[in-house]
Amino acid sequence: MKDVFIIGAAQTPVGEHWGLGLRELGATAIRAALADAGLEAGTDRIDALFVGNMLGGAVNGQENLGALLADAAGLLPIEAWKVEAACASGGAAVRAAALAVASGAQDVAVAVGIEKMTDTVSDRLAAGLASASDGDFEASHGLSFTALSALLMRRYMHETGASREDFAPFAVNAHASAAKNANAMFREPISVEDFLRSPLVAAPIGILDAAPVCDGAAAVVLCSREALAAHHRPIRIAASAAATDTIGLAGRGDLLTLGAARSSAEKAFAASGFGPKDIHFFEAHDAFTIITALSLEACGFAPRGEALKRAAHGCFAVGGCVPLSTCGGLKGRGHPVGASGTYQIVEATAQLRGAAGANQVPGARVALTQSIGGHGSIAVTHVLEG
Amino acid sequence: MKDVFIIGAAQTPVGEHWGLGLRELGATAIRAALADAGLEAGTDRIDALFVGNMLGGAVNGQENLGALLADAAGLLPIEAWKVEAACASGGAAVRAAALAVASGAQDVAVAVGIEKMTDTVSDRLAAGLASASDGDFEASHGLSFTALSALLMRRYMHETGASREDFAPFAVNAHASAAKNANAMFREPISVEDFLRSPLVAAPIGILDAAPVCDGAAAVVLCSREALAAHHRPIRIAASAAATDTIGLAGRGDLLTLGAARSSAEKAFAASGFGPKDIHFFEAHDAFTIITALSLEACGFAPRGEALKRAAHGCFAVGGCVPLSTCGGLKGRGHPVGASGTYQIVEATAQLRGAAGANQVPGARVALTQSIGGHGSIAVTHVLEG
Repeated sequence: MKDVFIIGAAQTPVGEHWGLGLRELGATAIRAALADAGLEAGTDRIDALFVGNMLGGAVNGQENLGALLADAAGLLPIEAWKVEAACASGGAAVRAAALAVASGAQDVAVAVGIEKMTDTVSDRLAAGLASASDGDFEASHGLSFTALSALLMRRYMHETGASREDFAPFAVNAHASAAKNANAMFREPISVEDFLRSPLVAAPIGILDAAPVCDGAAAVVLCSREALAAHHRPIRIAASAAATDTIGLAGRGDLLTLGAARSSAEKAFAASGFGPKDIHFFEAHDAFTIITALSLEACGFAPRGEALKRAAHGCFAVGGCVPLSTCGGLKGRGHPVGASGTYQIVEATAQLRGAAGANQVPGARVALTQSIGGHGSIAVTHVLEG
Repeated sequence: MKDVFIIGAAQTPVGEHWGLGLRELGATAIRAALADAGLEAGTDRIDALFVGNMLGGAVNGQENLGALLADAAGLLPIEAWKVEAACASGGAAVRAAALAVASGAQDVAVAVGIEKMTDTVSDRLAAGLASASDGDFEASHGLSFTALSALLMRRYMHETGASREDFAPFAVNAHASAAKNANAMFREPISVEDFLRSPLVAAPIGILDAAPVCDGAAAVVLCSREALAAHHRPIRIAASAAATDTIGLAGRGDLLTLGAARSSAEKAFAASGFGPKDIHFFEAHDAFTIITALSLEACGFAPRGEALKRAAHGCFAVGGCVPLSTCGGLKGRGHPVGASGTYQIVEATAQLRGAAGANQVPGARVALTQSIGGHGSIAVTHVLEG
């Protein structure tokens, strides 16, 4: 396999972009990532575009996003198609681009994650999000995306004796970082008291356990060693791995083990030669605080059932042993679902370049990102090295 | 790039499978393709699954098909995600699997194309199909998938002076081949008179110009040279290429040139070292007779505006210079949209193995397949060598 490098990264602010559709959001992020790499559509060689998106069909009435965005970004007639892996779509799009470059088929490939969740009716959005779960045995019986995560959280509390308050550090940490990130949706820090007072969405999940509905697009430009130029500040993709687990929660032997997250992390660690102890910061899939805890445990940052205890000791805050969601994460920066996996990699790139501003992790050289979809049924994990 | 081989291929019959959902159709095709390769889930090493599908989100309320089908086919915890490129999704899924194997990341990868179009309401299906076009400037104004193709056909007739009857050979040929294919949806030959008498759907497109709404799944198993075994009858993927064109028809400089089809064919010919004259048969994207004509011209089998004249001379029938849609094509075998590109490759594999039965093209050694989406905005072209 050929080495693959990130040479460009950019994002739109995350928020409610009522005036912008998929076309504008996507083209903006792609053009900005190309500019960051010193490349221009129509002038420089750009070989392929991979679009991570979940809800285009179910919510926006727009599929064929590969052609839509290649067209909008001035990249015709390059290869372009969409990758869908529920909320892990953004991570899977980067994986697809990495495979294309690693194969030698393409020298320069762009991955863009994009989602447009506002400007639709709420029941359509709820149905769209539920399409990540088992349609026959979960969604059709009324189990929403949040309700399924609530089942996981309730089980975690039952087995470990954790209280709702024990999940607070993840949300507090995410908002603290988001407050310093100009592209984040939520710019206000929250306190443990705010967290505890927040209304329940699907008990025991409160609104401050949950990432928001929002719009956004983020893009990275990948290339081969041969395509690197002197002006680039390349970040190496040390490993890229994906894995799956049962789509329905009922099929899992242990509800508190995210098998896909664990399997993809193990593959990524093995391929990169790095282990949990080598990771300088972790961009986790903190769509719900329970998923943050399970992701940390799946990646080996805490034994099963111990993530909250380590969080209580500040292990995952800025300055702790493994800083988490350093730019706000899905919770604070926002979670445009099919885009979030790409946002993670854009933010990790900034950290590894030493360009994360007020959120910079000092000396960050090795990053882990994990994009999770379908309540753990799909996970895509990357190790990046600066 | 490492060489990639097809070692397994299988399909479900195409038709109205009212009793089968995405889960059952997909798992059936995957298991049968693995069996054809002499592999078994859970026993043999299988590294990844790539699912080509268009309408899961818009029509079925089921995304995350990677995890769904990896789970249903007993392949957990392998890498699995969905690829969407409108009606070219099935071709793009094979392309994704080929990239994964060519990169060296995976040794054995399965691509499955799947679509479930029945068991929904017709307006939902029409809206789903229209999501392949430009949502802002075409679909939202009421232009359906068929209506957009009708605009292309009308322009072709205007520029070339062709009559509706001139398109008949494509439909007659497709039905003649489908009649001999046990997996085809339509098993009855049609005559030119039948074609001319068929009711108009969106003038000048008649119902016998158009491929039907249906369900189906087809799968191929790809592997590296290292993973080949003595019992395999490998077919080499001599080239795999994708390209794009404007998503909206209004953006095209020449309505009668399918730029994505031409560009992807040129790339595939250049990479394989073969040219149009070397092709022993062509699995074309004959969703509408006009698309067949434009695809033939884009691939160099006829000059612009000349495909119908060559068809009138029997050039594209069985026994002609380039046999077309040898197992019935999208028109006769059926067009489960996101699956059709994979069906093409399954059928081409059978031909190249000399196992196409009554539809066998004698001496077939080099095949071209072309999967087209979004009225030509995306195309995926493969050259296969037996």
